[in-house]
Amino acid sequence: HWKARLHEVIFEADTPKGKAFDVLLFVAILGSVIVVSLESVARLDAKHHDLFVLLEWGFTLVFTVEYVLRLSCVGRPSKYALSFFGIVDLLAILPTYLGLLFPGVQTFLVIRALRLLRVFRVFKLTRMLGEATALKNSLYNARSRIAVFLTMVGILVAITGATLYVIEGPEAGFTSIPVGMYWAVVTLTTVGYGDIAPQTALGQSLAALLMIMGYSLIVVPTSIITAEMTRTDPISTQACPECSREGHDRNAIYCKYCSAAL
Amino acid sequence: HWKARLHEVIFEADTPKGKAFDVLLFVAILGSVIVVSLESVARLDAKHHDLFVLLEWGFTLVFTVEYVLRLSCVGRPSKYALSFFGIVDLLAILPTYLGLLFPGVQTFLVIRALRLLRVFRVFKLTRMLGEATALKNSLYNARSRIAVFLTMVGILVAITGATLYVIEGPEAGFTSIPVGMYWAVVTLTTVGYGDIAPQTALGQSLAALLMIMGYSLIVVPTSIITAEMTRTDPISTQACPECSREGHDRNAIYCKYCSAAL
Amino acid sequence: HWKARLHEVIFEADTPKGKAFDVLLFVAILGSVIVVSLESVARLDAKHHDLFVLLEWGFTLVFTVEYVLRLSCVGRPSKYALSFFGIVDLLAILPTYLGLLFPGVQTFLVIRALRLLRVFRVFKLTRMLGEATALKNSLYNARSRIAVFLTMVGILVAITGATLYVIEGPEAGFTSIPVGMYWAVVTLTTVGYGDIAPQTALGQSLAALLMIMGYSLIVVPTSIITAEMTRTDPISTQACPECSREGHDRNAIYCKYCSAAL
Amino acid sequence: HWKARLHEVIFEADTPKGKAFDVLLFVAILGSVIVVSLESVARLDAKHHDLFVLLEWGFTLVFTVEYVLRLSCVGRPSKYALSFFGIVDLLAILPTYLGLLFPGVQTFLVIRALRLLRVFRVFKLTRMLGEATALKNSLYNARSRIAVFLTMVGILVAITGATLYVIEGPEAGFTSIPVGMYWAVVTLTTVGYGDIAPQTALGQSLAALLMIMGYSLIVVPTSIITAEMTRTDPISTQACPECSREGHDRNAIYCKYCSAAL
Repeated sequence: HWKARLHEVIFEADTPKGKAFDVLLFVAILGSVIVVSLESVARLDAKHHDLFVLLEWGFTLVFTVEYVLRLSCVGRPSKYALSFFGIVDLLAILPTYLGLLFPGVQTFLVIRALRLLRVFRVFKLTRMLGEATALKNSLYNARSRIAVFLTMVGILVAITGATLYVIEGPEAGFTSIPVGMYWAVVTLTTVGYGDIAPQTALGQSLAALLMIMGYSLIVVPTSIITAEMTRTDPISTQACPECSREGHDRNAIYCKYCSAAL
Repeated sequence: HWKARLHEVIFEADTPKGKAFDVLLFVAILGSVIVVSLESVARLDAKHHDLFVLLEWGFTLVFTVEYVLRLSCVGRPSKYALSFFGIVDLLAILPTYLGLLFPGVQTFLVIRALRLLRVFRVFKLTRMLGEATALKNSLYNARSRIAVFLTMVGILVAITGATLYVIEGPEAGFTSIPVGMYWAVVTLTTVGYGDIAPQTALGQSLAALLMIMGYSLIVVPTSIITAEMTRTDPISTQACPECSREGHDRNAIYCKYCSAAL
Repeated sequence: HWKARLHEVIFEADTPKGKAFDVLLFVAILGSVIVVSLESVARLDAKHHDLFVLLEWGFTLVFTVEYVLRLSCVGRPSKYALSFFGIVDLLAILPTYLGLLFPGVQTFLVIRALRLLRVFRVFKLTRMLGEATALKNSLYNARSRIAVFLTMVGILVAITGATLYVIEGPEAGFTSIPVGMYWAVVTLTTVGYGDIAPQTALGQSLAALLMIMGYSLIVVPTSIITAEMTRTDPISTQACPECSREGHDRNAIYCKYCSAAL
Repeated sequence: HWKARLHEVIFEADTPKGKAFDVLLFVAILGSVIVVSLESVARLDAKHHDLFVLLEWGFTLVFTVEYVLRLSCVGRPSKYALSFFGIVDLLAILPTYLGLLFPGVQTFLVIRALRLLRVFRVFKLTRMLGEATALKNSLYNARSRIAVFLTMVGILVAITGATLYVIEGPEAGFTSIPVGMYWAVVTLTTVGYGDIAPQTALGQSLAALLMIMGYSLIVVPTSIITAEMTRTDPISTQACPECSREGHDRNAIYCKYCSAAL
């Protein structure tokens, strides 16, 4: 039953061996992301090119072996290969091999960063996943409000971008409506690069209005999610069978008003 | 009764035909906004000018027919023509025709983006409108706080803008008090283009103060709306049968104003 | 008793005459601020210099008469003259007269913007003041948390500013430690002008850290005020004399659980 | 027992002498930080170099004497020397002495700013520490959510930075993947210097997406901490006399786990 033991080491994080494997893997992924990043720095690549190539191939071979082992010890290899992590694992090794045919593809190795999501397995998996789930649930419950919010932002961006394009023109950097929309997003989100900025009095007045809207609009998603998270947290919808009073916590077993079993 | 059937298709979204019409219309509006945007990109317009003109006239004719049909099947055409969506629908087709007389007016076709607000009809109209209404109510209830907040921001912007104009002068870009106010808005909202920025020690100190105020002030609208949205939650909509006053908590058994049983 | 009647018109906003006076005054203040602002625009001043001077003197005479009337109809003139609004009213007319002796002082007329605070008298004074008081109370209750927060921000700014000055030096714009602190405020508050920006890898890494801290730190004041506002709002600390239960609203007259008078 | 009396003056803030010492020390620390800052301004240093050197040595001697006194009157000097404030106190005087051997080290005197943390001792120590503790507890309770949030931000930054590096290349300032990551942090946190900014349509579209994500993401930490701080509120600290479990609501009469009367 080498398969079962291998599965325990690779896919579980509860046993000492499984945890050690996950920690080592996490270090290797982080290391490979750093190598790919440093390789892109011209000055460093000129000095240590051979080292970087060596490390890249080293990490790729390690991840290839790991990928093959994962496929071999899992029950249904095809199901794993088509899962989110299965595809990420494959994409994390492909660019190195493809780089032999098409030079320059190696940069996409940075997709290995996605593998860092495995970190949640290493440090108290269950609890973290619980937190992530709570966030996801809040976002899911608030999805229609978020959709209303994003649609309104989209319409605001489209109309402001086009208006500023008409008012300012190419001199101020507004060379087209899509560029105007890009500027509107940059301004509404309060990023404000400054590469494109209104120059006329009318354009600046409208931009000031857009900024105040963008500054205040952040209130909307904040209050949506906050209301959602404070609402979903403590209260169950269960009513006490004895005194019919509501407002019990989800983990309550007995009614806090009359001590009847819920 | 072709009028009633037409009305159902155009104005309702519950029947299959009505939904299909709304989806098609939404796609057409989105397409026409994209065409107007791309037409403004000089490089693309040089290549595909004739195609863009063709598409623009196509969309305009479709929207014109739709506008006429809407007017013809509605009970009181004049009331619809003067409603928000009626005016938007008219403004969405006018620029193309006016463009024959005054070249360059076509850019205003981007006002068609406002028609995208119809999207709320397509995807679960009622629920989304409910969410939008909740937001609107919170904003309405908080209107005096928002007015206090905006007035104070306005006064702060006016005084800081003028002060920086006096301190910095035209060398740093502060060419007039209105420009100084524009800079104050850019800074207070944390957009920070950088096209105008204080250069003197005194100016930079005051700017730093303004930034910290702007950074902290966001707290005010956030807490206003959050308090509003979380407050509306626990309040029941029940009115007292005796004194007819509202605003009772959900767990109230007796009216807190006149002690009558709820 | 012309004094009493004058006082009613000038200081009250409840009678029709008092309201009309306040609205007219508000329009005059807004107009005078706009005139001062436009006068600073070189292009407009070149064209309409005489008109601006005329309007400035007109507004100043009106405000002077108003100031004298206020002093004459109030009970204790010296007390009004030394109150916040009394000083603002004086500062709002002085610069024009001082401008005869020292040219260029007129710019300070913008201090008239402070008089716009009177707007709260015009539109439902009491309610707005109530809202402003609620905000002020929340800020007052949270003053020690705010002090802790601002002290920590100050220390963070001082240390980061000095560190970046050491790392980057004058080439990147960090000409001294105070300039470094200014940059740290610009970055921490997410304003980001870009006139000073780190160029070295180490400086950029530290700056990225500072940005993420600044981005996340906004959480602290937000949660402080939100917790404060949601806490102070509805609940009184009064317990029912009959059933001893707590959690009553501040405006409650009868216990909502047992209908006893509170 | 001069040691006990000295300890009271230096380490306590409740007695008049202790408070006076703390206030004087605070002023001295603030003064020394200002001197170090002003010394770095070339223009001021050229004029007052000797004064700055004199003041620097004066403050250093004062702080050295204070450090020696602290060590001499404390019970276990080694324990104090290795505590956080002990190390900060030492680092606050070392650079001046080291500056005799290695010129330029004096800039690190700015580390004295950390000593300003002692301010909390001066103004109502206990209460402020209580507030700081409340904040710290909220952060501690929310640590797994914060870790999830920061990991996701890190992965997002890594992948966006690399993607923009591939799309934009060195012309737009994206000279390497680490620079791209720096840009991603600058954009995601809405700082937006503008020294590096996408130029191509594809790059700008992706950047706009990143901005909207960064603009909305602020919601996550805000809601996490707010939920944490408002959650701790309504829970009573009462433990059940039967089963000893905590976490009961303030209005609970019976234990919700075992139905015993609270």
